[in-house]
This record gives sequence, structure tokens and C-alpha cells, in this order.
Amino acid sequence: MRCLIAQAEVLAFIERCMLAVGSKPSHAKSLAEVLVEGDRRGHYSHGLNRMDVYVKDVQTGICAKEGEPVVEKETVATALVNGSNLLGPVVGNFCMDLAIKKALNVGIGWVVAHGSNHYGIAGYYSMQALRENMIGMSYTNTSPLVVPTRAKERTLGTNPISVAAPAQDGDSFVLDMATSAVALGKIELYDRRGDIIPEGWGCDAQGKLSTDPGKVLDGGGLVPIGGGEVTGGYKGFGLGMMVEVFCGMLAGSQYSRYIRTWKGTDRVADLGQCFVAINPANFAPGFNSRLSDMLSLHRTLEPAKPDMEVFTPGDPERIHISRCEELGGIPYHINVVKFMNDCAKKIRVEPLLPCDRLISDS
Amino acid sequence: MRCLIAQAEVLAFIERCMLAVGSKPSHAKSLAEVLVEGDRRGHYSHGLNRMDVYVKDVQTGICAKEGEPVVEKETVATALVNGSNLLGPVVGNFCMDLAIKKALNVGIGWVVAHGSNHYGIAGYYSMQALRENMIGMSYTNTSPLVVPTRAKERTLGTNPISVAAPAQDGDSFVLDMATSAVALGKIELYDRRGDIIPEGWGCDAQGKLSTDPGKVLDGGGLVPIGGGEVTGGYKGFGLGMMVEVFCGMLAGSQYSRYIRTWKGTDRVADLGQCFVAINPANFAPGFNSRLSDMLSLHRTLEPAKPDMEVFTPGDPERIHISRCEELGGIPYHINVVKFMNDCAKKIRVEPLLPCDRLISDS
Repeated sequence: MRCLIAQAEVLAFIERCMLAVGSKPSHAKSLAEVLVEGDRRGHYSHGLNRMDVYVKDVQTGICAKEGEPVVEKETVATALVNGSNLLGPVVGNFCMDLAIKKALNVGIGWVVAHGSNHYGIAGYYSMQALRENMIGMSYTNTSPLVVPTRAKERTLGTNPISVAAPAQDGDSFVLDMATSAVALGKIELYDRRGDIIPEGWGCDAQGKLSTDPGKVLDGGGLVPIGGGEVTGGYKGFGLGMMVEVFCGMLAGSQYSRYIRTWKGTDRVADLGQCFVAINPANFAPGFNSRLSDMLSLHRTLEPAKPDMEVFTPGDPERIHISRCEELGGIPYHINVVKFMNDCAKKIRVEPLLPCDRLISDS
Repeated sequence: MRCLIAQAEVLAFIERCMLAVGSKPSHAKSLAEVLVEGDRRGHYSHGLNRMDVYVKDVQTGICAKEGEPVVEKETVATALVNGSNLLGPVVGNFCMDLAIKKALNVGIGWVVAHGSNHYGIAGYYSMQALRENMIGMSYTNTSPLVVPTRAKERTLGTNPISVAAPAQDGDSFVLDMATSAVALGKIELYDRRGDIIPEGWGCDAQGKLSTDPGKVLDGGGLVPIGGGEVTGGYKGFGLGMMVEVFCGMLAGSQYSRYIRTWKGTDRVADLGQCFVAINPANFAPGFNSRLSDMLSLHRTLEPAKPDMEVFTPGDPERIHISRCEELGGIPYHINVVKFMNDCAKKIRVEPLLPCDRLISDS
């Protein structure tokens, strides 16, 4: 069963919770906006579902409540930012604004931050560039979950890559992907249902590809895009490391297996993140129409299976957003709503309401 | 059987052939250097093996002999270059030099070219940034060979991504990968041997994954990294399109299925390419040592299989280069040498010599 909650209410709820544990209003709002956008786009693993992690980070004081990000080093086209250990979205918005300003001025802005925290969906930041008719990019390192090709230890995060580019009439290309074959949450879901997973999603504690989700979760790990070595998993591993080059290496933050365990609050996260804006106006005229043509060329390809149309990056999310708009709210699994309302109760915050607009799963 | 040829002789041979069909000496040299570097790194599909394609391009006049690349638009950090339909390496070297100059000045250079041609291994250009202790990147679109997830038509090239980054003491991270699961040449090899290919390398003319290399070559196509949809092939497809955003979209060149067929000389290639340099000196101090640590951390991981050590991007190529140095030459399949000497004969050029240093395949 799913429970339909109005978008404005989810936003207000997350803000209430963050304010209750001491976040500044502007910081609480920044976080709420990213998480709701994650859910609206159908990436539930990066939305309300994770609010408790941010609440805990701020409540324990391991993530800073006060301060603002600081530019430590700068040229007309680049910047190194100290995220001041603030919430990821506060750092991300600051850096993306800066990258866009630089790109307006000299065609590109490449901004790297250390001292950051989890920032929700990577696509939230890359898409900010679309407003200025620019290409946006966003990368972050994350807690180790991925086992490199040929190894058996988790040394890399799911290190996402997001690239957004503007087409015509508000249309766009939005790539937002982890460099692992799938997200950990997907494997947890199969495990809970007692189903086996497809080969190429994860490996066991000996580094061997496994279709048993229990083995992947218990001492094994995710594998890079491409799966095993024979199917090109080493390329996904290389891309995960590339994200570290842009993040941990350039930023001087934590990196690879030195990043704290997912959900850990024993020490600051000190994540490295990278934000880029590129202004097509500084390159060949006609960018938007070429991109519209490329998207349309692919969307109208004859599908291999008649009922499965060809999607371009961002299309599945667009469909989910339309569905939320038709429904007049975001459909959440009832257990997520219950769990979040329990969290809210503990910090004496008004629950998500109303919880009685139920729709069946589909 | 393999035939060992001295590196200097391969270089001189390619130069002789290109001069014979009318290339300018500097252009012939640029091409020879990229192709030999491809072979030295073990990427034989992008080396001497392809010389006949470049010879034909110049001989037919479909690729220009005269002129130099021209900067059409420029900021301190970006440039749009007209490659003047010259050989890919001439355009690539010009653009990479420009990107590095900009990065020395303002921390980053992002240079995009239209009117280019096939440029050999993408890594040749990204690695040029290492000389200045910078990160280098190189991307190119290519003739359509890849079938998007859910489709059955080839609409994207193998669109490679290369990112090189400097570690300490001359060590480096060198990612150089096609965004398809494997190269076409690999499937041709299995076909010639009558072997089946692993699932996740290619699809048949109906867009269905196939383990029959004949079906992949005959109307089917390569699939993106990740293989089928369930194992994340849509991510590889997204990356291939991302390369087009950086190349065809920004450059205003040909793109996607409008690019001429591989080996076609019916019309100019007009490829789009993208070259980037990023100066770590403009970000956090200690870049090289962090990268050395990340590489070493991975190389010393306990392998899942004791005899298969964990490689970081660039390690397999480093091993091949060492082998060439030990052997005192580059080992070529005897048929490649014969074929190239036949090509040379037709344009009245002295053959690759000597051809009698034979070693067994391994």
C-alpha cells in the first residue's frame, strides 16, 4: 500500500524535523528541497527515506549547524571550497552557484569541495545549470560499498556521475547514475523478498559474483557497472576511480576506503564533491536544437520489444514526475511514512499528514 | 606467430606511407606517433592495424592534406576549434596544447573541435597533460556501432572516455575506455575463431543479446557497458550519449547516426572531439601523493584469485610497454605486417623491415 502525501507537506515536514534538531532555516530548506526532488523523480532511495540519517548527523553534532561554505582558492574558472562540514545540499548549492557564475563569465566553472556531507541525488545539482541554458555536472565520493574488479574488499563508494544538458522547449538530457551496477537498496529489496538477484549486481565475501543477495550484503559488496571482468566491470571500476580523481584527489577530502562507513557518526564525513557548469554559448551555435534532435532520434527508435519504448537519460524520471502531478502528491510506501513519523515523534515534531490517501502499489 | 619490429621502424614506416600519399611531414609524424603508442600500449586495434584507413582517407582526398586547425571562438578557459578536416592526431595535438595552455593560466582548459577525423587512442591526448602535472581528458564521437538499450538499431559510436591523472614519481591513472562493453574487433576475433562470445557483448538484428558473434556482426551491434537493461546497460548508453553532449552537441559536428559508416570515404568524417586539461595546482595541495596512495591501496588489495592481481586503470598497458621494452620491439601478428607491407607496395613504399624476428604468440 502506498500513501499519497502532498509535495508541500513533505517539504514542510523535513524542514520541521531539521529545525527541531537545530538546523538553520535556510539549511533545513536546502535539504528538504533535494530530498523531495529525489522522491519526485522516483529515486526513493535518496529522498525522505534517508531523512533520519541527516537528522542524526545534525543531532549528534557530527555535521555542522553553523557557518557557511568558504572559497579557499580561486581563478576565473575554478574554485576550491571548504564545505565547513555543513549539510551536503548547502555545500552543493553554494558550489553550483559559483560554477554557473564562472561559466557565465568565461564559459566554464569547475568547483571542488572538501568538508562536505551526503548531498542527495547528484542530478539535483547538475540540473541547476539548465536554468541558465548550460550543461551541469556533479560528482561525489561516498562510503565504500563497491568491490573493485579482481578484489574482494569494498574500497569505493557508488560514486555517482551526473551530467545534465538543455535541449529545446524545456526538454533536457539528465544522466544521473551510480558507477556501481545497481544501488545497495535494490539488493536489500530482493533480500527482503527472498528473491535471487541477476548475475552482475554484486559479489560475495570472496569477490565472486553471486546471485544470493544475502551473500552480497553479508561481507560481499556491489560490483562496478559492467559486472564481472569478462563483461567489462573494470570499466565501471575505472569510472568509480575517475570520480575519486575529481572529488577526493582534487579536494583533499577523505577518499576511497578512508571514508567513514555508511550511516556512521563516529567522525565527520569530509566528503569530496565536484560541480561543473559549461556554457554552450561559448561553443558552436545550435546546441539546444542538436540535443533535441538527438533525444528525439532515440526516443522514436523502433523498440526491440513493442511495449518497451526507448528511453533517453531522464525520461523515466520525467514519467514519475508526471505521475506525481496527476496524483496530486508523492506516493510513499506506507512503512516509510510510519517510520518517518516515528522519527518525528522522538524529536517532538508534527507528523506527515494526512496519511489516509492510500493507493495500491504499482 | 608474431613478428618483432623496432618501434623506430614502425614510426618511420607509417611516416613513409603517409608522405607517399601526400601528407605534410609534420602531419605524417603526428599520426605515426599516435598509432605506435596505441600498439606499444597493447591496443592493437588502434595502431598500425588501422594505417590503411588513414592512407585511404588521405589518398582519396576525403581527409585534408593542407591547412592547420583554426580557433573559431575562445575565452581564457574554453575554445571552439575547426579541425579543418585534417588527420585526427593533428587536430588532437593542437587542441590538447591549447587546453594545457589555458589550464596553466586559469586552472582549466575545455576545448572542443569539429571537422576532425579518427584520432587513434583517446588516451594519447589525455596523457599529454601528465607532462605538465595536470589531469587530461579526451572524448570523441565515432561511427555508429552501438545499439541503445531497448532498441535494435546502431545509433552511437563506441564513443571513448579517457581521463589521465598524475601520481608521484611518473606513476599515473590512465582510464581509456570505449563506452561499449567491448570493441568490435574483439567480436570479429571470436567470429574468426568460431567461438561464442559472452552474453553482454553484443546483440542481434532484433536487439536481443546474443552469444553468436556472427549475429552481432550481421545486422546486430555492440551493446553499451553494462550489457542488457537488467544489468545496467542503460548506464553505458547514457555515458555514450554524454560523450556526444561533449563532442557532437558542443562542437556542431556530425553526431550519432549521422556520422559516416566506419571505413566509409563517401563524405568527410566531420567528427566532434573534446579535450580538457585541469591543473591540480589550483585545488588542494597534495594531489600527486593522494593519487599514488589510492593507486597503491588498490594494487595491493588481496586478489579474489591468487594469480590475478588487482589492476588500476593503465596497469595492463604499463605491462605491455615493459614487455615491448624487454623484447626490443613491438610484437605484431605476422598477418598484420604482411597486410601493411602489401599496402605499402601499392603506394611504392619500402616495407617494414626486418620481418624475420619471429616470436611465438603469448
